[in-house]
Amino acid sequence: MKIVVYGLGIIGASICASLKKAGHTVYGKNRSREPLDYALEHNMIDGIVKNYSEAEVVFLALPPAATMKELDTGNFPSGCIVADVCGVKSAIEKCVLKRPRHYVYVGTHPMAGKETSGITSASATLFRGANLVITLNRSTDKRAVSIIEALGRDMGFQRVVECSAAAHDRKIALTSQLAHLVSSAYIRSEEAPSSLGFTGGSFQDMTRVALLDEALWTELFFLNRDELLCETDGLISRLKEYRNALAMGDEDRMEQLLRLGKEAHLDFYQKNG
Amino acid sequence: MKIVVYGLGIIGASICASLKKAGHTVYGKNRSREPLDYALEHNMIDGIVKNYSEAEVVFLALPPAATMKELDTGNFPSGCIVADVCGVKSAIEKCVLKRPRHYVYVGTHPMAGKETSGITSASATLFRGANLVITLNRSTDKRAVSIIEALGRDMGFQRVVECSAAAHDRKIALTSQLAHLVSSAYIRSEEAPSSLGFTGGSFQDMTRVALLDEALWTELFFLNRDELLCETDGLISRLKEYRNALAMGDEDRMEQLLRLGKEAHLDFYQKNG
Repeated sequence: MKIVVYGLGIIGASICASLKKAGHTVYGKNRSREPLDYALEHNMIDGIVKNYSEAEVVFLALPPAATMKELDTGNFPSGCIVADVCGVKSAIEKCVLKRPRHYVYVGTHPMAGKETSGITSASATLFRGANLVITLNRSTDKRAVSIIEALGRDMGFQRVVECSAAAHDRKIALTSQLAHLVSSAYIRSEEAPSSLGFTGGSFQDMTRVALLDEALWTELFFLNRDELLCETDGLISRLKEYRNALAMGDEDRMEQLLRLGKEAHLDFYQKNG
Repeated sequence: MKIVVYGLGIIGASICASLKKAGHTVYGKNRSREPLDYALEHNMIDGIVKNYSEAEVVFLALPPAATMKELDTGNFPSGCIVADVCGVKSAIEKCVLKRPRHYVYVGTHPMAGKETSGITSASATLFRGANLVITLNRSTDKRAVSIIEALGRDMGFQRVVECSAAAHDRKIALTSQLAHLVSSAYIRSEEAPSSLGFTGGSFQDMTRVALLDEALWTELFFLNRDELLCETDGLISRLKEYRNALAMGDEDRMEQLLRLGKEAHLDFYQKNG
């Protein structure tokens, strides 16, 4: 099976490296030359291609706008499976479904990453133990989904979840986008610069993903604007409950709110093993 | 040097275990018997004591109210160095300074912990690489501070920072207390229970410390109420900036806010090595 990965950033190059390590033959495609040379030197790909000729599976590991452009204009072989890896799914699916395609589309979201980006952050083990979301719609090809799922297992994903693009986008607003937004807002406190030596693990956790690619995340946020707005408003509203308990000197209420948070944590992580 | 640690929870028992591992002789004191037996079995202490007789250094590893009660009523030998480990410092210092003491007080805050508590979460390596804050006031004894600092190094702390109790409390509102408050509010989203399989590292980081002891953290929050209220209001206000950029469809503003967050992250972590 000839696999081509277009876009050798952290996600694309990690797809290459993990699939190659699992025994697949993988070709890299990229606009600039340097990541291709790096991937060859680091044994992440078997070769370089300039087009999708004879490809059976293509992974598009590009930002959303570039992904949609390639889904519209890429010269994919007829019947080729084309999977994107964008962090939003409704907008991508809408783009694909706007007219008949001679390729077979599968939407995916590898729930893994780092606060750093680019091929030098990629590795064959990035997806180990992580979640892979595959989005389905009425015209989804089941055989194509089972091939992508099997490749996902070979990449190291522990759990593969299938759902609609809309369900994905609603959940991702909470589990990923809001976390990046909060992290960014958190570290902008005026007190932060003088807090050298006063941090423990909780501050590091809270601020880690503020080191993001602001153009990419702006694009992701605005392709999921309503859902992210809803989750942001929800969080602000809950923060005000704690704030008001403090302001009003209501210790019982604060203890109750913190207990609700602890119970939500226990519920969530018990369910999630 | 005879060292007594009163309170064998995660912090107290980790003080015992790390000091004993570094070659000190350490005695444990605790209200209930089980943690003492556990500490003996796991080679965390050299023995059990019921009082502070002949102690040269005492660590009080108790919640704030219990710490203040012990600082008032504990039968410490004259000239004994007594260090507390509470996460708030002004309230404790105020308690000590309200009348002359025949012991020598040093305020400390070991900036380390886990989302779990109790002696079974303790270890000789908990403080390795972490920050230790020591608070100073006009009547602080320099010799006592240097002894506690040396013991801190033996426990594994990488950095020891000295400051006033007020400065500590202002910074800790941001670096620790607000993180616990946000984590609690974050995981209480109605969308969380159905987000199984949709989480990556950012969600786990954002929600980790919601698993807290709600009585202890309520006590800590209310002993630092004004500072925490100020940081909470600051965060809510910054979150509204992102929220408004989303609501108004202002992508340039969102990208600017995210860039400011990234720059704050780079500044902070470059300074912090």
